Amino acid sequence: MSKIRLGVLGGGGDSLIGVLHRVASSMYDRYEIVGGVFNPVHEENIEFAKQIGVNTDRVYEDFDTLIAEEIRKPKDERIEVVSVLTPNFLHFPMAKKLLENGFHVICEKPLTTSHNEAKELEALQKKHKAIFAVTYTYTGYPMVRHMKHMIAQGELGKIQKIDIQYYQGWINPVIHDPEVRKKVWRLDPKKAGISSCIGDIGTHAFQMTEYLTGMEVKYILSDLNTLYEDNSLDLDGTVLVRFSDTFKGIIRASQIATGEENGLTVAIYGQKGAYRWEQENPNYLYHLKDDEPRRVIKPGNAYTSDVSLDGTKLPGGHPEGIFDAMGNIYKGVAKALRNEKSFEGEYPNMNDGVRGMLFIEKVVESHKKGNIWLSLDNQ
Amino acid sequence: MSKIRLGVLGGGGDSLIGVLHRVASSMYDRYEIVGGVFNPVHEENIEFAKQIGVNTDRVYEDFDTLIAEEIRKPKDERIEVVSVLTPNFLHFPMAKKLLENGFHVICEKPLTTSHNEAKELEALQKKHKAIFAVTYTYTGYPMVRHMKHMIAQGELGKIQKIDIQYYQGWINPVIHDPEVRKKVWRLDPKKAGISSCIGDIGTHAFQMTEYLTGMEVKYILSDLNTLYEDNSLDLDGTVLVRFSDTFKGIIRASQIATGEENGLTVAIYGQKGAYRWEQENPNYLYHLKDDEPRRVIKPGNAYTSDVSLDGTKLPGGHPEGIFDAMGNIYKGVAKALRNEKSFEGEYPNMNDGVRGMLFIEKVVESHKKGNIWLSLDNQ
Amino acid sequence: MSKIRLGVLGGGGDSLIGVLHRVASSMYDRYEIVGGVFNPVHEENIEFAKQIGVNTDRVYEDFDTLIAEEIRKPKDERIEVVSVLTPNFLHFPMAKKLLENGFHVICEKPLTTSHNEAKELEALQKKHKAIFAVTYTYTGYPMVRHMKHMIAQGELGKIQKIDIQYYQGWINPVIHDPEVRKKVWRLDPKKAGISSCIGDIGTHAFQMTEYLTGMEVKYILSDLNTLYEDNSLDLDGTVLVRFSDTFKGIIRASQIATGEENGLTVAIYGQKGAYRWEQENPNYLYHLKDDEPRRVIKPGNAYTSDVSLDGTKLPGGHPEGIFDAMGNIYKGVAKALRNEKSFEGEYPNMNDGVRGMLFIEKVVESHKKGNIWLSLDNQ
Amino acid sequence: MSKIRLGVLGGGGDSLIGVLHRVASSMYDRYEIVGGVFNPVHEENIEFAKQIGVNTDRVYEDFDTLIAEEIRKPKDERIEVVSVLTPNFLHFPMAKKLLENGFHVICEKPLTTSHNEAKELEALQKKHKAIFAVTYTYTGYPMVRHMKHMIAQGELGKIQKIDIQYYQGWINPVIHDPEVRKKVWRLDPKKAGISSCIGDIGTHAFQMTEYLTGMEVKYILSDLNTLYEDNSLDLDGTVLVRFSDTFKGIIRASQIATGEENGLTVAIYGQKGAYRWEQENPNYLYHLKDDEPRRVIKPGNAYTSDVSLDGTKLPGGHPEGIFDAMGNIYKGVAKALRNEKSFEGEYPNMNDGVRGMLFIEKVVESHKKGNIWLSLDNQ
Repeated sequence: MSKIRLGVLGGGGDSLIGVLHRVASSMYDRYEIVGGVFNPVHEENIEFAKQIGVNTDRVYEDFDTLIAEEIRKPKDERIEVVSVLTPNFLHFPMAKKLLENGFHVICEKPLTTSHNEAKELEALQKKHKAIFAVTYTYTGYPMVRHMKHMIAQGELGKIQKIDIQYYQGWINPVIHDPEVRKKVWRLDPKKAGISSCIGDIGTHAFQMTEYLTGMEVKYILSDLNTLYEDNSLDLDGTVLVRFSDTFKGIIRASQIATGEENGLTVAIYGQKGAYRWEQENPNYLYHLKDDEPRRVIKPGNAYTSDVSLDGTKLPGGHPEGIFDAMGNIYKGVAKALRNEKSFEGEYPNMNDGVRGMLFIEKVVESHKKGNIWLSLDNQ
Repeated sequence: MSKIRLGVLGGGGDSLIGVLHRVASSMYDRYEIVGGVFNPVHEENIEFAKQIGVNTDRVYEDFDTLIAEEIRKPKDERIEVVSVLTPNFLHFPMAKKLLENGFHVICEKPLTTSHNEAKELEALQKKHKAIFAVTYTYTGYPMVRHMKHMIAQGELGKIQKIDIQYYQGWINPVIHDPEVRKKVWRLDPKKAGISSCIGDIGTHAFQMTEYLTGMEVKYILSDLNTLYEDNSLDLDGTVLVRFSDTFKGIIRASQIATGEENGLTVAIYGQKGAYRWEQENPNYLYHLKDDEPRRVIKPGNAYTSDVSLDGTKLPGGHPEGIFDAMGNIYKGVAKALRNEKSFEGEYPNMNDGVRGMLFIEKVVESHKKGNIWLSLDNQ
Repeated sequence: MSKIRLGVLGGGGDSLIGVLHRVASSMYDRYEIVGGVFNPVHEENIEFAKQIGVNTDRVYEDFDTLIAEEIRKPKDERIEVVSVLTPNFLHFPMAKKLLENGFHVICEKPLTTSHNEAKELEALQKKHKAIFAVTYTYTGYPMVRHMKHMIAQGELGKIQKIDIQYYQGWINPVIHDPEVRKKVWRLDPKKAGISSCIGDIGTHAFQMTEYLTGMEVKYILSDLNTLYEDNSLDLDGTVLVRFSDTFKGIIRASQIATGEENGLTVAIYGQKGAYRWEQENPNYLYHLKDDEPRRVIKPGNAYTSDVSLDGTKLPGGHPEGIFDAMGNIYKGVAKALRNEKSFEGEYPNMNDGVRGMLFIEKVVESHKKGNIWLSLDNQ
Repeated sequence: MSKIRLGVLGGGGDSLIGVLHRVASSMYDRYEIVGGVFNPVHEENIEFAKQIGVNTDRVYEDFDTLIAEEIRKPKDERIEVVSVLTPNFLHFPMAKKLLENGFHVICEKPLTTSHNEAKELEALQKKHKAIFAVTYTYTGYPMVRHMKHMIAQGELGKIQKIDIQYYQGWINPVIHDPEVRKKVWRLDPKKAGISSCIGDIGTHAFQMTEYLTGMEVKYILSDLNTLYEDNSLDLDGTVLVRFSDTFKGIIRASQIATGEENGLTVAIYGQKGAYRWEQENPNYLYHLKDDEPRRVIKPGNAYTSDVSLDGTKLPGGHPEGIFDAMGNIYKGVAKALRNEKSFEGEYPNMNDGVRGMLFIEKVVESHKKGNIWLSLDNQ
């Protein structure tokens, strides 16, 4: 079994996202990083490649050169899939050109900077029949996959409520001083786009609702908070979501939940049972039922689902974490690239990316129009 | 120091609320139950009085007799304060007559069945200068009082977000069978009034927001769920609340959160810190700050506030529970009755009761009108 | 059903143990405190009785007077059972005289100051067929009773290991200063007897092992720590215990586990499953099995055992605490006094008290003799 | 900065330990696996090398060939360090020959099968001035390193007690059937050596006590349990440990703690404070002090020590796990190999390995001699 030839765009220097993707790609011995463009400055680019042990022959001066050179190579040497880890505004042009030139893509979220761009990528992906992953990391946790699988199997019965929270506090120390907050790129509409909190973390929560339920949100109503008049982007928001007239949900996101670190939590309630899960304790899944003791599901145990076991490398009690979650997404993409049998949802895909962009736009619109219901139907 | 002469209305037989109030009243050796009407059937009434060791001389045939007989007694023998534990619709007429005849009142929540009734009681209470407690039990926990006190002292700085959850699952096993659900009084508008979930537990969450912050909610927008068309009362609801343009909150309540027991949780975030607390683990209060380890505050320790210590009977590590919380409310009332120095908020009062009724009415109205913002200004 | 006539010795003034017993006795409406001797100084005694609402007619000047006066009364007016809350060295003479005069007894632990005294009381109790409870409070928790009951039912299969911890830290702040530690009565052999840590809390742990398993410890080997040469009493100790050649256990106790509050924990492992429980979170019992998700048992739920439900006053999710645990012990004694049907182990009894004294003596002896095995057979 | 040339012995096929070391070695981009002997069967060996992307030129037929071929290469091409992941009895001969030929070594625990062998390796290591790591994985967790560092800084003051638990349940399902247990290699003295539980996991606990305190255990007294007469190896054991007359500790280990997964826990108490930590929740470290709220230390936060931050790749709230712990040990070895500045204890070393073997032998001896104290002085 030959390794998958992976190219990487961005992620050089001190980039944390670069570390995350590199480690993830190596976890199941499925990928080899054969080239890329890690840094805009070519000297640093080469230096970085050496540092991480990538052959510098295929470390290119820029993205366009990478495309030009790689497509000249024979198919069985060419980079197969490219991880796009560049700043958000570059996702669209890069992914577009990659698709047009026959590459598969693993793209960081958010997919693009607008729903229209996302739709354009989606059309291209379909046309070229490309594998396209959008790295909503948290779906890679074995316990999240277990939930999705068991819900699809009917373990919870008909779902009647979902409540997802994503609370962080990191903007609190910078928002209260007008001078300091000017320097935060996340709060600059020119760099961050139309949303801060919803765009960055609200989308994770939204994607989780659709991922777990296998259903689409039909309508949303949002209420956002910018905290200061001279701050234009949302720092906090609550979104009421409707899957149907009787299946409703809540998405709560914040960057000013003082002292919270990365507080993504899930609660999903069905007629026959419920699940509760917290990202910061990812190896504990609580299964609740009417009038039975709650159960604590832990990964690596034989009693968990096959999809969970497939994403757990060690036996129960050996905690795996967020690198392992991303590793599972890379593994899912590897299976797709090699036409191997896989479970549903092993990697978040183009549809997740497109829906995410629609969600951001509609949430901002709902708030601006006075907190009204808007449809999330794909146009 | 003589004991306070307490009368009790309702709470006989197997009543759980009766046990809760009786035990609570005895905890600090401040009250003696000297009489009351425990049951509608007088024989059972007498039997019950004997069983709980109350002298049957002052166990009356009915409420009107109690009033008539007691006011005939000299002031220093007369029942001083009456606990009203009867079904909700009786709270108003009983509390009204008690106030008109010079008694102090401890009333179970909800205060009445409408905001108008509540306003009428409030006027009477002011006129008669009566002590009037509404037993929102959860404010009696030492850690809740500690939060309120520390927030008032500025420990969290300016508050920017509050998120209160009250999730139960007990209606799930009865709602899905049309025949079964017909028999649940909570779901019968004639008995339960205009709301099930919000009326029963949403009000606790609402009261907690105003109790902790010391501020009034200005506007609300609600979304309720009845789950079935032929079920008219809400089983689940989310309420967006606004204290100001930049201080917002969320109240989430459910009776169909399958498998949840009594899941009242608090998260309150300020510029300088945050608190998190869960009713089912009432002796653990988490204090979060930017870039400092979170602290775990536990009752009975010298480092807690005076109001917390005043409500804790044993040293740290000896868990006290919901009986002790209600005991603290009775203690607060005792202090008020004896003009003793007390801390703010030692018992939830008439204002909490009135606001609670307004909240229920407005939440139902907001939902019916299409999930719109409504003012919560006292009319 | 008439109330049980309870007398109380000690527990006046600011006594915490007094509060605990008074509240506990009132919880199920089964007892009435009709008299006692609360304080050595009679004026304070009378004052205290008034304060807690006890008729002063039967508040006696001293213990001997109580006995003399009460036995003169007709049987159906006489105090039936006496709670002994006095300093440890008074337990023996008081309990002895009470038994000799036909009273039932509820005695605080430790039962006496020596095993010989305890044996003498045991003989008297048998002779007089008295009800005699020793208030090892922690056995009153519903989840502890549930464990005992389920273990007796075979839920865990044959037991193969038990591990009980009781860690406190309160002596740490006083032990390191020679002047300060001189003033702590617990560390004065004249007042505290032969042991500090094992005598005070190690016995709780020991009693828990025998209570839960329904078996007797056969042998012990101990290692104690006094921390300073000029401190003669143990502050910390580990005791290896043997029920049989293949069923072994560990008791770990400390008063210098800095920062610990009241850390009593239980872990008991059998061939078919295990239980884990912590006193500071008494409403969460973990049931572990091979290759099944662990279960979280919570009191007040219909799925728990009858003995658990009998000791829970409110539905699941309404936390009850240590007062409620002691209340259940009083309830157990009430059932015994009224010949009502009861569950095994509803109150810790004379045997627990006697075994406890033997344990203390043998643990100290084992340590002094160089950490050797000693038999715990009752002599 | 060139990568470190790593060779690997063992760890092929489905080996979990192989995955753990491979992922760990890749995490900080410091190592390249350039060769090795993964499997005894050479065909599988080659196949496996291809599968994980290792150039087959340096995949050797057997260990001796590896040595012979590698030492012929120029120094700057030769394998620098070899990870020994073979069955326990091969550790000694392989490590010996590696040291004699100038290689550095990363060796799985237990280091050897006897203390004498370990001493021999130690002498060789000193002679050759080799870097030698023994992979006690759990010391790689950032919170464990933080503890060690802070204890060395005096954060807890003088240590007065340490209590380490390592409870697993995996042998319970196999021990009760005489036929089944015959097939478990862990229980076969010919394959597993003189101890099962203490040898496998008790040593981890022991190493943790010396790692955290920076002190040596002076004496031990042990009590082991084999559960059945016809089972000769320990399945469970408690070890009393003494660092000094007043600083004592307890090591508790079990493989028959039914339902436990990988329950390694630490509690260490000093005059000024205490730490508590659990391996299954490795990102939560509890810091306890007299009369202050306990603190929850979480990795990735600026308030943690430099050594903790050095071993954390992502910000707070992004859970890292056991792969990341092993990754940190590899990073520590990399620093040593490149003479980089490092923190104390960044990799467990030869001394840990030697002490571990001494511990196993003495624990078994103490038990066999009737649970007596034995010295752990290095002979």
